[in-house]
Amino acid sequence: MRTIGIADTTFARFDMGGAAEDELKSIADGIKILRVTVPGMKDLPVACKKLIEEQGCEIVMALGMPGPKDKDKMCAHEASTGLIRAQLMTNTHIIEVFVHEDEAEDDRELASLAERRSRDHAVNVHRLLFRPQDLRRNAGKGRRQGFEDAGPVQ
Amino acid sequence: MRTIGIADTTFARFDMGGAAEDELKSIADGIKILRVTVPGMKDLPVACKKLIEEQGCEIVMALGMPGPKDKDKMCAHEASTGLIRAQLMTNTHIIEVFVHEDEAEDDRELASLAERRSRDHAVNVHRLLFRPQDLRRNAGKGRRQGFEDAGPVQ
Amino acid sequence: MRTIGIADTTFARFDMGGAAEDELKSIADGIKILRVTVPGMKDLPVACKKLIEEQGCEIVMALGMPGPKDKDKMCAHEASTGLIRAQLMTNTHIIEVFVHEDEAEDDRELASLAERRSRDHAVNVHRLLFRPQDLRRNAGKGRRQGFEDAGPVQ
Amino acid sequence: MRTIGIADTTFARFDMGGAAEDELKSIADGIKILRVTVPGMKDLPVACKKLIEEQGCEIVMALGMPGPKDKDKMCAHEASTGLIRAQLMTNTHIIEVFVHEDEAEDDRELASLAERRSRDHAVNVHRLLFRPQDLRRNAGKGRRQGFEDAGPVQ
Amino acid sequence: MRTIGIADTTFARFDMGGAAEDELKSIADGIKILRVTVPGMKDLPVACKKLIEEQGCEIVMALGMPGPKDKDKMCAHEASTGLIRAQLMTNTHIIEVFVHEDEAEDDRELASLAERRSRDHAVNVHRLLFRPQDLRRNAGKGRRQGFEDAGPVQ
Repeated sequence: MRTIGIADTTFARFDMGGAAEDELKSIADGIKILRVTVPGMKDLPVACKKLIEEQGCEIVMALGMPGPKDKDKMCAHEASTGLIRAQLMTNTHIIEVFVHEDEAEDDRELASLAERRSRDHAVNVHRLLFRPQDLRRNAGKGRRQGFEDAGPVQ
Repeated sequence: MRTIGIADTTFARFDMGGAAEDELKSIADGIKILRVTVPGMKDLPVACKKLIEEQGCEIVMALGMPGPKDKDKMCAHEASTGLIRAQLMTNTHIIEVFVHEDEAEDDRELASLAERRSRDHAVNVHRLLFRPQDLRRNAGKGRRQGFEDAGPVQ
Repeated sequence: MRTIGIADTTFARFDMGGAAEDELKSIADGIKILRVTVPGMKDLPVACKKLIEEQGCEIVMALGMPGPKDKDKMCAHEASTGLIRAQLMTNTHIIEVFVHEDEAEDDRELASLAERRSRDHAVNVHRLLFRPQDLRRNAGKGRRQGFEDAGPVQ
Repeated sequence: MRTIGIADTTFARFDMGGAAEDELKSIADGIKILRVTVPGMKDLPVACKKLIEEQGCEIVMALGMPGPKDKDKMCAHEASTGLIRAQLMTNTHIIEVFVHEDEAEDDRELASLAERRSRDHAVNVHRLLFRPQDLRRNAGKGRRQGFEDAGPVQ
Repeated sequence: MRTIGIADTTFARFDMGGAAEDELKSIADGIKILRVTVPGMKDLPVACKKLIEEQGCEIVMALGMPGPKDKDKMCAHEASTGLIRAQLMTNTHIIEVFVHEDEAEDDRELASLAERRSRDHAVNVHRLLFRPQDLRRNAGKGRRQGFEDAGPVQ
């Protein structure tokens, strides 16, 4: 029984954590999922670290949706830096799933992008935990999450 | 008896710590509030860490009001980075409540925004400590603090 | 007998450390002041940490004067980040006193600003060490160092 | 038998890890190469740290290909910062091999650049491990990886 | 016998480490100099930390020459941040000697600037180790390395 953590926010405008959990359950057997919700992106790093150190998660997904302003971009940068630091302090992967509001043209596309990226990264989490050879085989293949793959050059 | 820390600054132009304390007292029973005031935002990270490690706070609010200049934005960035680092070093949430002076049109709106955001985040602190299920239920709902909620997409 | 550290630079164009020391001596009894001078701002973080860990300082002032170029702004940012990290590693306040050369119109104003800010922050150091209630009473009052106070919003 | 780690991504659009491994095998005897592939650049720091601490690698190559957008540049910055932190936490070199998509005019040049830089840095890894005197002899010589050497001034 | 480390790069276009070593030897008796060369600036932080922790250096010089592009500026920033972190982890000074290629008008000036700054900082290293009172006496004097001193404001 492997334990996977999911940390998301009340700030995000789509239930990214729900999509990730649903995807994980559909592809993996014998996993336990622990969820926690925090107010905003900057609360994610410590929330993830607590999931790892206090709740025994072997890997965590950190899902957030930065707004379109410069201030929001800076928040995302600070959160990302913290998530990397949390990983280095715990020797544990935390897969960041951020969807910037201005990546989408409208609300409909934003919802679709958020759902797809959350699900695509849930697959990555599954691979990191259970099927690293699937990632290894795709090294340098231009894989994307939420959008079409860019594909390899040439 | 749970202990909550509140760290604010003499630089801020509104008594954000006072608003946060007032809100916490109005919604929570059986809490002890410890307050400390430092000169500016960059003094907040170590002040919060000391509240946690030397005063036994289980969660801390860090309240500040960055000015409108580029230099002020950079100060806020440095303070935020430090607050995240402090959380990771202590496995304890520090809720950052920053109101940028240029978020408001005039002093009146600035005061109103600072008060409301401080109170809204005091509610978040209460939820993190006592009612995590309330945050969980609002995952992906586009919640904001100080302004109207953005709401979920669609 | 409380020990206060003062770290300054040969890069700065005003004797900020001297002003800070003079102010501290005029307002505090029973203190011991340790001074160290390094070449530039980026040397301040480790100099301050050594004052704390190797010389027993209970609080330190870090004084510097960033130049007007982009490169100088980046140096200041790196130094500030390091000073915050040093504080978190030692649970000790380091009060950063930076005067950006382009904050002043001419050399005369620069000297005046550097002196006043150094002295104002020396007062803050004194308060953090001996009179925290004076800071607490000024929470949210829009206090500034080196310039006139902005004052609280109404 | 020295152990070298190679960490690359599925995001990259060229098999940089493959090129690095091929080069290492062609120039070094008595080495063991461990490879791991992660989704994106921000997953590299902890992947490298695990190769060092959990798999016994003496040195690691971290290969990635940042996209052309501002958001991608920021990701690369966050990953680089994490890679440096990972090195400091382990006292072990991690050679970063990043090829920015906008360094090349077209796909053909991008592939060529990615291959050459990966191979050139594999040579650097070999030197760091087995022939530090070769690096020492080239101090200040304007060496580049993937492009022509800039050469020394004068 | 005090041990001084010198770390430089093959990326730099001038033998800055050689100039620093030559200067140190000309002004100091009873010192031992350890040198290491790495490919680029981002490899300097861990190289310096290893000189301190594994080779017993009491102080280290980190010499590099960032190129003129935005990407190069970001590399320099990442390296600087890492050098400060390395200092804080070891309580040891690492004197950063970076010469940005675009500080000079042409190659001739670049070589001259790189040599002079390396030598000037070698003097600073000597002072930090043997004559801190010389730095103390120059506090606030507007000292520069590689260019003329700015001098104190009047």
